[in-house]
Parts: sequence; structure tokens; C-alpha cells
Amino acid sequence: MTTPKGAATRLRIVEAAAAEIRERGTIATTLDDVCRRSGTGKSQLFHYFPQGREQLLLAVTEFEAERVFQDQEPYLHELDSRTAWEAWRDAIVETCRDQGPHCPLGVLIADVGRYSPAAQAVTTQLIRRWQAAVRAGIEATRAAGGIGPDLDADRTAAAVITAIQGGVSVLLSTGSATHLEVALDLCLDHLFAANARPVG
Amino acid sequence: MTTPKGAATRLRIVEAAAAEIRERGTIATTLDDVCRRSGTGKSQLFHYFPQGREQLLLAVTEFEAERVFQDQEPYLHELDSRTAWEAWRDAIVETCRDQGPHCPLGVLIADVGRYSPAAQAVTTQLIRRWQAAVRAGIEATRAAGGIGPDLDADRTAAAVITAIQGGVSVLLSTGSATHLEVALDLCLDHLFAANARPVG
Repeated sequence: MTTPKGAATRLRIVEAAAAEIRERGTIATTLDDVCRRSGTGKSQLFHYFPQGREQLLLAVTEFEAERVFQDQEPYLHELDSRTAWEAWRDAIVETCRDQGPHCPLGVLIADVGRYSPAAQAVTTQLIRRWQAAVRAGIEATRAAGGIGPDLDADRTAAAVITAIQGGVSVLLSTGSATHLEVALDLCLDHLFAANARPVG
Repeated sequence: MTTPKGAATRLRIVEAAAAEIRERGTIATTLDDVCRRSGTGKSQLFHYFPQGREQLLLAVTEFEAERVFQDQEPYLHELDSRTAWEAWRDAIVETCRDQGPHCPLGVLIADVGRYSPAAQAVTTQLIRRWQAAVRAGIEATRAAGGIGPDLDADRTAAAVITAIQGGVSVLLSTGSATHLEVALDLCLDHLFAANARPVG
């Protein structure tokens, strides 16, 4: 059992690591930096993260992912029209453009995302959760009459997630958010084309 | 001026580094490993790559990218119908699925792609070249009557590249090629929907 005090200490360590990584990058951040910033000792850190650095990086990834979801939540819960989807797209593009190659979640997933089964489990879970939220938005928009009955919600939600991943990946490599914007636009066209009725 | 013998030595070093990285990953590969495998000395290596490790990694990225283009070329040059585009999609998905999280170009771009202006220049150039080839395929398909006049070739080519990047990024993180396949399918639907004529 973790006590409330223990949970607070663990969170303080994760927040300190997240702040260091935002400022200096994953590779340059050491456990000593995290201890100094969080005011904890090494033995305390290893009490909460017995597997050390990688386990801490995964906890930071989950922490940053939670922050992204909280930023997105107001938009995701309102997805029921093309206008609402465009507001969501604009929010994503704007956030990513502001952060540029320093998008914390993007950097973390790129750095920790494939070196261990534990890292794969965390990123797979993130993708699944994000995709479920997009899928719920598609169903809500369909219920509101904005999307036709033939659209495959699962596959389209997967394509939207891929567009975001690809857009962020290009942004991390080139510094430009154009690919993110264009790929999301194509997904939105696809979402609403399924409902298109010939006029006249 | 590089002599033919010098070019051969440089290529031998790049090939050795590429082989080491394929077997052991970017992080675990040292310059000593590369020297041993290529039968060259450290001073020779620094003659061709005066900035050392990062410069060598960028050369390996270009080398692996060239290999990917050569694999794709037979398909890219034939893009003039939906059947040809589907053959290309299948080739990409199959290659990526076989390589799984070990896709050499994906790993290299993720590892070197954002730590310096030189790395950004190489990956930006790769994305541009790849996108130009896809754009040429869209124009060839349009010339053959497969794609309607209203489709924006530039934006669609950018979305296709983003779908590939995103699909490979999900594959590197989760081991599954489903997102790659679904996202490319959506792009193909978009490509050919622009030409859809109602029947009857």
C-alpha cells in the first residue's frame, strides 16, 4: 500500500523529472538532477522506482500523457459536428506548433518507446486510450447526424491517431507542423465525406 | 576531391556502421565496432567523418534511405492506377511488418532526427524527396485518368508521407503494422474518391 505521503513524494519525483526533461532532454537528464530538483535522496528514488531510470522515464511518459489528455478533454468531449472537429484539430496543431521539436510526449515516446516490453506496454496503452476517445467522438458525431452510417469508426479512429503520430514525428524531425495539419484535414474530409449527399 | 579509392573506403565504413546498427542498435554501436568491422583505423574514420559519430550516423541514415528508395522505385515508377497504388501499399506494409521494430531507417530517423541542424537537414531532405516521388505518382495517375482534376496533389502527397511516418512510428512503439495499413488505405480512398462518378 502506498500512503498519501508516499504518493506525494512519488509525484514530486515524477514532476521534477518531467521538468528536467522538458528543459534539458531525456538523454541529458540524470537521476542526480532529479534528486536535486525534487529534494529527495537516491535511496528514496529507488524505493519508488526500484528499476531506476527506465521505470522513472515510463512514469514521466504517463504523466505527460495525462497532461495531454487533460488539455484535449474539453475538445474531445464536444466532438459532434465538423466545426467541433476543426476546433480540436486547430488545438492540436497549435499546441504542437508552439512546442515544436520540444513536444514533451513526442520526445519521450521517441526516446523510451521501443527499448523494452514495459515501454511498449505504456505506449500501446496510450495509443489505445487516445484512439478510444477519438472513436467515441466519431460515434457522438454520427449520433448527432454529422457522419453517415457506412463509415468504419474503428479504422477511421486508427487513421486519425496515425496522422497525429506521423505529424508529430515529421515535426520532431523538421520543425514544421504542416504535415500534421494536412494529414488531419484529410481525415476530417474522410469523416464527413461519408455523409455527403449529392445536392439536387 | 575524393579519389575512387577514398570513396570506396568511405562506403566500406558506412556499410560497416549500417550493419552494426542493424544488429545492435544505434546506441550500442561504437566507433571502435565500426573500425573493427570495416578494417579501418580510427584516424582513417575521422578523415572521412571529421565530426565523428553524429556525422557517421547521418551518412548511415542517407545510406539506409537510399536502400529504401531503391526497394520502392519499381513501385513508385508504376503508380498510374488504383491497382498499382495498392501494390505499393502492400509492399510498404509487408516490408515494415517483416522488420517490425527493427526498421533501420525508422530507428535511425528516431535516434538522430532531431538533435542538430545537420540531422534536421538530412531528414527534411528525405521527406521532401519521398514526397516528390509520391506527388509524381499522383500526377501520373491523374494523367492516366485515374484521379480527378480537383485533388490537391501537394497536400495529398504530404498526407501520404505523414501516414507512413505515423504508421512506422506506431509500429516502432507497439510492434503492430495495422495503423500503417489503415492510414494508407484512407489515403488511397481519398485519392480515388476525388474521381468518383455516381453510377447511373
